Amino acid sequence: MTTTLSPAVRFGDAQIEMSHGAGGKASRRLVEGLILPTMMAEAIGQALGDAANLTIGDARLAITTDSFVVRPLRFPGGSIGELAINGTVNDLAVSGAVPLALVCSLIVEAGTPTGTLQAEIEAMGAAARHAGVRIIGGDTKVVEHGKADALYITTTGIGRLDPRAALGAEAVRPGDRILVTGHLGDHGITVLLARGDIDLAADLRSDTRSVYPFAAALLDEAGAALRWMRDPTRGGLATSLNELARDCGRALLLDEEAIPVRDEVRGACELLGLDPLHIANEGQLVAIVAPERADRALEALRRVDGGGAAALIGRVDVAPAGTVLAVSAYGGTRVVDMLVGDPLPRIC
Amino acid sequence: MTTTLSPAVRFGDAQIEMSHGAGGKASRRLVEGLILPTMMAEAIGQALGDAANLTIGDARLAITTDSFVVRPLRFPGGSIGELAINGTVNDLAVSGAVPLALVCSLIVEAGTPTGTLQAEIEAMGAAARHAGVRIIGGDTKVVEHGKADALYITTTGIGRLDPRAALGAEAVRPGDRILVTGHLGDHGITVLLARGDIDLAADLRSDTRSVYPFAAALLDEAGAALRWMRDPTRGGLATSLNELARDCGRALLLDEEAIPVRDEVRGACELLGLDPLHIANEGQLVAIVAPERADRALEALRRVDGGGAAALIGRVDVAPAGTVLAVSAYGGTRVVDMLVGDPLPRIC
Repeated sequence: MTTTLSPAVRFGDAQIEMSHGAGGKASRRLVEGLILPTMMAEAIGQALGDAANLTIGDARLAITTDSFVVRPLRFPGGSIGELAINGTVNDLAVSGAVPLALVCSLIVEAGTPTGTLQAEIEAMGAAARHAGVRIIGGDTKVVEHGKADALYITTTGIGRLDPRAALGAEAVRPGDRILVTGHLGDHGITVLLARGDIDLAADLRSDTRSVYPFAAALLDEAGAALRWMRDPTRGGLATSLNELARDCGRALLLDEEAIPVRDEVRGACELLGLDPLHIANEGQLVAIVAPERADRALEALRRVDGGGAAALIGRVDVAPAGTVLAVSAYGGTRVVDMLVGDPLPRIC
Repeated sequence: MTTTLSPAVRFGDAQIEMSHGAGGKASRRLVEGLILPTMMAEAIGQALGDAANLTIGDARLAITTDSFVVRPLRFPGGSIGELAINGTVNDLAVSGAVPLALVCSLIVEAGTPTGTLQAEIEAMGAAARHAGVRIIGGDTKVVEHGKADALYITTTGIGRLDPRAALGAEAVRPGDRILVTGHLGDHGITVLLARGDIDLAADLRSDTRSVYPFAAALLDEAGAALRWMRDPTRGGLATSLNELARDCGRALLLDEEAIPVRDEVRGACELLGLDPLHIANEGQLVAIVAPERADRALEALRRVDGGGAAALIGRVDVAPAGTVLAVSAYGGTRVVDMLVGDPLPRIC
């Protein structure tokens, strides 16, 4: 999650609820109103991206950490082990870094079958090899039966900032274009259906993958015309773009018809009263590119393996500042807000 | 935990038990027999220390990760938040690195009072400032009530390797001396008593602290004569020294009377049938120093704030290779083995 730390936000909730981990408004209040001012007071006023930057010697590094608590552990197209690798690789990639190495810490519930654990560490090894990163260290803790849900994984990634990347909300200009790499909402709806709580069948798979090839293609093609990137996970595209709108003080205008969403995802969302733009993705990237490079950047995304559905979905404007609007084919507009509450808990 | 990965170890247990997280023999089998060969096959044959090394540009880095699941969250002298900072700082320090920055990921159980969380993030902020490291990023996940134990914390630390440090089991020579920084077993027994499961009162406090000042003092005083360092946490001094004995192929001979253990810890251990050398520490360092620098190194440790009880507790010999022996004042010797089983679960 990106946040610009403001000392003005206060967290007054009496206890922690599921919504505080959902990546939307409640998460933002917890992080900005409690965690950052308490733990990282020196960061007030800084923009905090998906990865933190750190310069050591002549090395400009990006470092990011994420815990994964997805339920169930396995679902069509992926598993917690794959998510744990790809999610961290992706946070580095969208920060303009070349992912290099990971460390992984496991919290295992006593009584978990060895085969369950083995399947996930195999998935982690395979995903790391596929993403071209090394797993260089780790830790394992075991808690009593009933004190976890089989397995939680925390991965921390370290990468080298690409010197061509000059990314940030402050670089975004009116007229810039908004690109996405593929269909939105596949991951969240797949995990939801895998739980079996809802009587609905759909031929869907999680989109978990490394988005580094997309980030690299954009840097190659657009260079400094690439303004900003994010992987819209918890809270979906709507939340990522609202964070950007707030941080850059611009309006983001989406062409509703151009946003790639599969019929199965749209159908499930209609049934459940959800907006596909609030559903988590695990293998998509949203980018802001200067208009003169947008077409070539889109072509570059489409040439990447798995990028056939990449699309230009909107543009940056001046007003209404700080807002995301979706324009329908009939000319109607709707405000696209951040996720509120937690309709889909433990999606990553 | 230090391990030299050997492809010969096989993990045949059907499910994960508490002992697999205790830091002793069962942990070692899980890590060496399953996790490393599956997830980090390229590491076979490498010695894996408390921190992994990584060179980026001209920066020689150390990186380490640990999850903290201690129960209860608070105990005399410390809390999970302090442990989470100090434990990771210490893994960097004993690897010969200057700790620079941390990232922290929280897994919070829904229903946890905000005050409980706030107390721990305050403890983390204070411990980081005290240790001189910056917290530069983080993540927060929430799981349903009953799916965690209020709070688990994973911290990852990054540091710069001190160019003076040339540490490793392979550097250890017969005649080298064994030093420790203070009383052993305080942390483990304090946490055990804080649970209230045992009807025993003792005026004990956890020893949680940054051991970086000790590591720095040893490097300043002994330089290349400093052979090896470790912070003996899970599994205690006995486990750390058994790992060293195995890795260096030497005998480690301890002077039982010289090992600093408080009467309260010794008494609790006698009552519970435990060996103080198997009890976890969170603010101690054990070091191997060449004999010609051992006395000055010991004086340097004693000059560090909190180092008054530092002691020279033994020496390295040739035989019996791979073994830790304790010699009593009466001349009797006993084999000091690694921890087996998990007498004190969730101690860190």
